[in-house]
Amino acid sequence: MELVDRLLQGEQQALARLITRVERDNSDVPDIMKQIYSRIGRSHVIGITGPPGAGKSSLVDKLTAIYRANGKSVGIIAVDPTSPFTGGAVLGDRIRMQQHYLDSDVFIRSMATRGSHGGLPRTARSVIKLMDAFGKDIVLVETVGVGQTEIDIVEAADTVVVILVPEAGDAVQTMKAGLLEIADVFVVNKADREGAENMAVELETMLHMSPKQKWWEVPVVLTQAVNNVGIDKLHEHIVRHYQVTTESGNLQSRRKQQRRAELLETIEQRVRAMVEQHLHKDGELLDCLVRVEQGEQDPYTACDQILSSQTFLETWKREIAED
Amino acid sequence: MELVDRLLQGEQQALARLITRVERDNSDVPDIMKQIYSRIGRSHVIGITGPPGAGKSSLVDKLTAIYRANGKSVGIIAVDPTSPFTGGAVLGDRIRMQQHYLDSDVFIRSMATRGSHGGLPRTARSVIKLMDAFGKDIVLVETVGVGQTEIDIVEAADTVVVILVPEAGDAVQTMKAGLLEIADVFVVNKADREGAENMAVELETMLHMSPKQKWWEVPVVLTQAVNNVGIDKLHEHIVRHYQVTTESGNLQSRRKQQRRAELLETIEQRVRAMVEQHLHKDGELLDCLVRVEQGEQDPYTACDQILSSQTFLETWKREIAED
Repeated sequence: MELVDRLLQGEQQALARLITRVERDNSDVPDIMKQIYSRIGRSHVIGITGPPGAGKSSLVDKLTAIYRANGKSVGIIAVDPTSPFTGGAVLGDRIRMQQHYLDSDVFIRSMATRGSHGGLPRTARSVIKLMDAFGKDIVLVETVGVGQTEIDIVEAADTVVVILVPEAGDAVQTMKAGLLEIADVFVVNKADREGAENMAVELETMLHMSPKQKWWEVPVVLTQAVNNVGIDKLHEHIVRHYQVTTESGNLQSRRKQQRRAELLETIEQRVRAMVEQHLHKDGELLDCLVRVEQGEQDPYTACDQILSSQTFLETWKREIAED
Repeated sequence: MELVDRLLQGEQQALARLITRVERDNSDVPDIMKQIYSRIGRSHVIGITGPPGAGKSSLVDKLTAIYRANGKSVGIIAVDPTSPFTGGAVLGDRIRMQQHYLDSDVFIRSMATRGSHGGLPRTARSVIKLMDAFGKDIVLVETVGVGQTEIDIVEAADTVVVILVPEAGDAVQTMKAGLLEIADVFVVNKADREGAENMAVELETMLHMSPKQKWWEVPVVLTQAVNNVGIDKLHEHIVRHYQVTTESGNLQSRRKQQRRAELLETIEQRVRAMVEQHLHKDGELLDCLVRVEQGEQDPYTACDQILSSQTFLETWKREIAED
């Protein structure tokens, strides 16, 4: 595919177009992914998450500046909660990133959360891969970390940074949101505000009580993103985490797990797509569907009927063989 | 199954036990669901969601009191964000509900969000069905509405109530969170606080700009749950919504859509489970898995290989036939 060649040669426009195809879930996405597969795994993927208003965008902005000063190319994926009315992502926060828009070695892409119903983590992972294949040294993935979907997205990263602010409530809230479990580095942003030190101490205490891994002690960094305070330190911790995971072999096993999960998900999606496509074509399957929709049959019985129907199995085999 | 018979006869202990089985994803869940299927669809399922601290538990508490005063039996499913350390749900908020614990016509069950990775909406739907089959007139499902998973859960309801508080930020935040789209009834709780009236006006304006349905105008209700103010009105709107959706035929089409989605999901899960089970047993499949884990092969190619492998198709047919 010409577009993929152009991506691999580092053409920005090709990257943008391929991302759009992935977002639209075009039928050629599997082909694109197959073609770039041998060229990925070289980016350091950093997931950044935290509650709304924690200052994630400012922090990503300042971190990007440091990476650029060190000569690293940066890709940014900002997963924005969507407005159901405009259909697009709410881009207000992105305006702050304008300084980097002029820098051709920083590629920024916003993605919308709404309406994806579980498909978003998969799309986000594909976009990460495109940026990786394109040759970005660093890929920053920013989400609003409040739900399982958002957590699933950042878990595709090599290093997960969780940003909190003193106002975000106490450390127990962090536990509740499942953030303590996924963080490789903690940031208490807006550290000039009251309660920042206490929050850091609370977090450290909880982390000591239940360490995640033996080979890595999760640091808690105090920052003031808007005043550019503490960002250097945060950058150091992130770089060190990547070194330590790489050297200890943990990066490899983390990626192994991610790939396994991805395979299972790909299979799941493939089967679903095939079933959806055939439900209306085949009389037997359509009959099953209608009975379920009317509440006359339970989905488990219908599922077995559909999966074991002779026509379905045959169509299936033929379709996969054709691909 | 004896337990199912006892459930259908209204034995509370049977309900509790069956919920536990569903939560543990026991292998007999499909059987349980098949057996109760002809007995469901009679409860009014009400989804209640909103940001943390909006006062959802108090509101559910007060609503329950009204339903009980009207002689309705109530089931409550509280989806609580999980602590990754204790492994259980954080039950602090539930303590407020204690008054109803003594009422045998109110059945309360907490469910944990963490670690379910997308499976939670399915589990929650099954628990709703158990309560429905048990004979509850009203099933209240309460989630912290911040992520897609939580939204997916309340979308299984007949009536969705979204609770906001003045401090929760402006109406734009609500849009961002995708809550405007799913609400059948809006509540501005803690209405004695500053900004409550303004928030209600803002919400009404947005709702007028983009009405969800012609047959239902989404009301905005001001409440003070702790002072029991406005709950009667909220109750009226919820009851009216159920009447209007039922009479207009929209309840039927809503449930039809839900059932269709459920069938597709059941198929997806079934295939995934089968693949997971066989990946390690079959030499050819294991080889595929290892190559993907090592990063030597892309998941799309591996997916096709696995799904079209002769051994897999044969095992598949045999397994489904055996069920």
